[in-house]
Amino acid sequence: MADEVVLLDTFFSMFGMRARLALAEKGIEYEYKEENLGDKSPVLLEMNPVHKKIPVLIHNGKPVCESLIIVQYIDEVWKDNNSPSLLPSDPYQKAQARFWADFVDKKLYDAGRRLCTTKGDELETAKKDFIEVLKLLEAELGEKSYFGGENFGFGDVALITYSNWFYSYETCGNFSVEEHCPKLMEWVKRCMEKESVSKSLADPKKIYDSILVFKKKHGFE
Amino acid sequence: MADEVVLLDTFFSMFGMRARLALAEKGIEYEYKEENLGDKSPVLLEMNPVHKKIPVLIHNGKPVCESLIIVQYIDEVWKDNNSPSLLPSDPYQKAQARFWADFVDKKLYDAGRRLCTTKGDELETAKKDFIEVLKLLEAELGEKSYFGGENFGFGDVALITYSNWFYSYETCGNFSVEEHCPKLMEWVKRCMEKESVSKSLADPKKIYDSILVFKKKHGFE
Repeated sequence: MADEVVLLDTFFSMFGMRARLALAEKGIEYEYKEENLGDKSPVLLEMNPVHKKIPVLIHNGKPVCESLIIVQYIDEVWKDNNSPSLLPSDPYQKAQARFWADFVDKKLYDAGRRLCTTKGDELETAKKDFIEVLKLLEAELGEKSYFGGENFGFGDVALITYSNWFYSYETCGNFSVEEHCPKLMEWVKRCMEKESVSKSLADPKKIYDSILVFKKKHGFE
Repeated sequence: MADEVVLLDTFFSMFGMRARLALAEKGIEYEYKEENLGDKSPVLLEMNPVHKKIPVLIHNGKPVCESLIIVQYIDEVWKDNNSPSLLPSDPYQKAQARFWADFVDKKLYDAGRRLCTTKGDELETAKKDFIEVLKLLEAELGEKSYFGGENFGFGDVALITYSNWFYSYETCGNFSVEEHCPKLMEWVKRCMEKESVSKSLADPKKIYDSILVFKKKHGFE
C-alpha cells in the first residue's frame, strides 16, 4: 500500500515550511491542506487536540505534531530515500543540531513576533534581541557551508524557514539583516539554491501582506 | 580510554534530575558538580555560553546542553548498555514520546513557576492551568503502565522529575494532586519503585526549603 501523507499547514508558517521542506528533501508526495487559523477545520482539531496548531503531518491516518518532531519523524521514516539524512548519525553532532534548532525555537520566534507587534522602546528592544540571536547563529555557522558542516541538515531546516520572514522583520523594524549578518545572508542564498528549499518557502511579500492584515485586525498599526 | 562524564547540575532542578535519571538508567558513573545558580562557575559559563544554564553533560570534554537533548544523547551513546532504550525504535512511537516530553516542557514548568511566585487570582489561574495540564497527561497515560506502554521511557523521564516538586506546588497552591489525578499518582509510585528513579530525585522537603529561600529573596512571600 502506498503511503498516504497529508500536511495541515498555513502558507506563511515558518513551522509548516519546515515540514514542507523536509518532505521535499525526501521527495515525498503529499496532499497539502491550507488551514484558516481564524476558523480551524474539524480535522485539525481532531488531529492535534492538545495544541490545536499547524503543522500536523498525517501519515496513513496517524498525526504527528510539532514541527521539529515532524522533521525528525520524516527523516527517520524515509531514511532510505534518495537523499542524505537531515540528522547526522553521530550522537554528538546530532545533539548539536538539536541544540541549535531548539535555540531557534526558543529565541528567534519570540523576538520576531515582538518586531511585528510592538512600537517605540519595545520595538527597539525586539530589534536588538533579534539581531543578537542572528549574530549568535552566524557565529555558530562560522566558515561552514551549513550548520552541520558540508551537508544541508536539521539546523538549516529549523532556521531557513525564517529567512523569508526577514523582509517583514526588516520592514517592521527598519533595519537590514544583511548589514548586521552578511555571512548568514550568504548561507541563506546558498540554501535557496537548493530546489527543496526554494520551492518550500513562501513569498516574502505575501507573508508581509498577511502580517499587515493581522496588524490591522489586532490594532498593531 | 574510559569515558569521562561530568554533570553540572543543581540538586532541585527537574531538568538536571532528568540527566541524573538517564545516567542511572544506563548505569553510567559520573562526577556530579553542584552549581550555585547565584554565582555560576567559570566552567558552566564556558560549557554553556549560550544559555548559561544547568544541566550540562560534559562527555570526554565536550558539552551537551538542554535536558531532553541530554537524555536523547545518553540514550544514543550508551545504547548497548544493559538497559532498554528510553526512546522506542519505531519512528511513530518515538514522535509520540517526543511530543509528550515537549508538552511537559511547554506547559508544566510555566504553570508550576506561577504556582510558586503568585498570589490571589493569578495563583488560582496557575492552579487551574497546572491541574489541567496534569489531567491531560493522565488522560494520555490512560491504562498504560508508563507513557510509552509497558516500559519506562522518554516521556516518563520528562515528567517524573516534576513529581518531587508536587509537595511544593501543593503547599504553595493549597491543593492535592492525588485528589485531581489519582491515576497519575499511581504512575508516580510505580516509577518510584525503580531505583534509578528514586535515587535520582531530590527530597521534596529540601526542594520546598529552596523555594522558601527563593521567595524570601525575591519578595514573593
